[in-house]
Amino acid sequence: MDEHGRELAISIPAERDLTVYVDKRELVTLMTLGAHPEWLVLGYLRNQRLLRSVEEVESVTVDWEVGAAAVRTRGGIERIEERTARRIVTTGCGQGSVFGGLMDEIEAIALPQAQLAQAQLYGVVNAIRLQESTYKSAGSVHGCALFRGERMLLFVEDVGRHNAIDTLAGWMWMNGVDTAAADPDQPFVFYTTGRLTSEMVIKSAQMGVAVVVSRSGITQMGHDIAARLGLCAIGRATNRHFLCYTGRERLRAAPELAGPLLQAAGR
Amino acid sequence: MDEHGRELAISIPAERDLTVYVDKRELVTLMTLGAHPEWLVLGYLRNQRLLRSVEEVESVTVDWEVGAAAVRTRGGIERIEERTARRIVTTGCGQGSVFGGLMDEIEAIALPQAQLAQAQLYGVVNAIRLQESTYKSAGSVHGCALFRGERMLLFVEDVGRHNAIDTLAGWMWMNGVDTAAADPDQPFVFYTTGRLTSEMVIKSAQMGVAVVVSRSGITQMGHDIAARLGLCAIGRATNRHFLCYTGRERLRAAPELAGPLLQAAGR
Repeated sequence: MDEHGRELAISIPAERDLTVYVDKRELVTLMTLGAHPEWLVLGYLRNQRLLRSVEEVESVTVDWEVGAAAVRTRGGIERIEERTARRIVTTGCGQGSVFGGLMDEIEAIALPQAQLAQAQLYGVVNAIRLQESTYKSAGSVHGCALFRGERMLLFVEDVGRHNAIDTLAGWMWMNGVDTAAADPDQPFVFYTTGRLTSEMVIKSAQMGVAVVVSRSGITQMGHDIAARLGLCAIGRATNRHFLCYTGRERLRAAPELAGPLLQAAGR
Repeated sequence: MDEHGRELAISIPAERDLTVYVDKRELVTLMTLGAHPEWLVLGYLRNQRLLRSVEEVESVTVDWEVGAAAVRTRGGIERIEERTARRIVTTGCGQGSVFGGLMDEIEAIALPQAQLAQAQLYGVVNAIRLQESTYKSAGSVHGCALFRGERMLLFVEDVGRHNAIDTLAGWMWMNGVDTAAADPDQPFVFYTTGRLTSEMVIKSAQMGVAVVVSRSGITQMGHDIAARLGLCAIGRATNRHFLCYTGRERLRAAPELAGPLLQAAGR
């Protein structure tokens, strides 16, 4: 019922629980819209750094009847007990989960060369706008997309932005996307509707994507990590507005495209 | 740097890690803005249903030097191993954590009598608007507030909405807020900037708050649980617009306050 007392039929997103088993061992239960469960599961394992290469995976079988995804690996997950033991509940929306020992591995990441022109950034933001106005959204969900320059390669929605970005990671793995080999002038770019938190920045770096764009803001930890990695983090991206927080050298600014300069400098 | 190439000094939220120990046993690490760590810790324990009453707590000591909160209980947490074993990563923004066995306990909850008038709902939404325009926000954070009727009792911001609502729960516990004794015409109301997911609905019910208002939408699981509990879930609340999804009997509608009826019925 709305404010006028009218009864309306609306769509709301349906979360489905998907329990992930790796070599018959229960790992975690994810809540997802369920559009791309195999990519989600693979991407989850990748982004939690439990597996290093998609070649380690023999099979992924999803059975929605029981809400289970069974992953078979070729060699097992090393030190799985230890690596899934430490429960850190990180930000996300107050609670996320990152299995321990991450900063050491993160520091070792070398991002590819990447230069995004301001015009390409506007292309990215516009592509998202078109996507959202063209395709009926499940509503109350987070969207995430992978671009090469301003060309959208994949758009994913899920009830949570962690799932959305993990799904992209899984797709990239399945499709052998080599981010190191990209043309620096057509860089890989992530777009997310969610905030640029430490976890989003880390996942992006792990996936070899040097430019992350969000319509939301950034947190201090996300900022610190992005700065350390030299990742280009751009937030508050709507219409022509944006704030480039870190990695400015990866953005080819073109202020003339920004339209008239108004006095009030917003947040 | 913004789109005009201008350098701006902005504020971003700083997450700080807070490791919670209960009777010297490490439980979880929360990431928080850190404004109200004691309330957050107490509320976390309450909403995870690890303790039943604030009287079970002897002390909460927070030491920011080491990012630790030490909780001492009078009788220990029953079956702590078992109850913290099952790792369900629920929605939130894709990942949250709810220690097992919740639906049985949830079904037993009886919400208090509560009737919110449409005018009071508008008072709530307006109070939030004033709060946000009056007090400089940390930016990129979630806000949560507890109201009695349209009177704001507490407003909390944190990097995640789970932390924000847990902090409110902790404050209510510390202050012995008896939601069962409330005047039905001045009901307790939660306001959240986050989505009405299953976890948010469950937490609200556990805290004895029968009306939840969000500027965002609802998910199917949040909807199902709210319907089962008879909780009044109101989303998309901005200006005069809102959608009452469940518990309509708890809302005293007054469509005449809604302003002119336009043809397009939005999502």
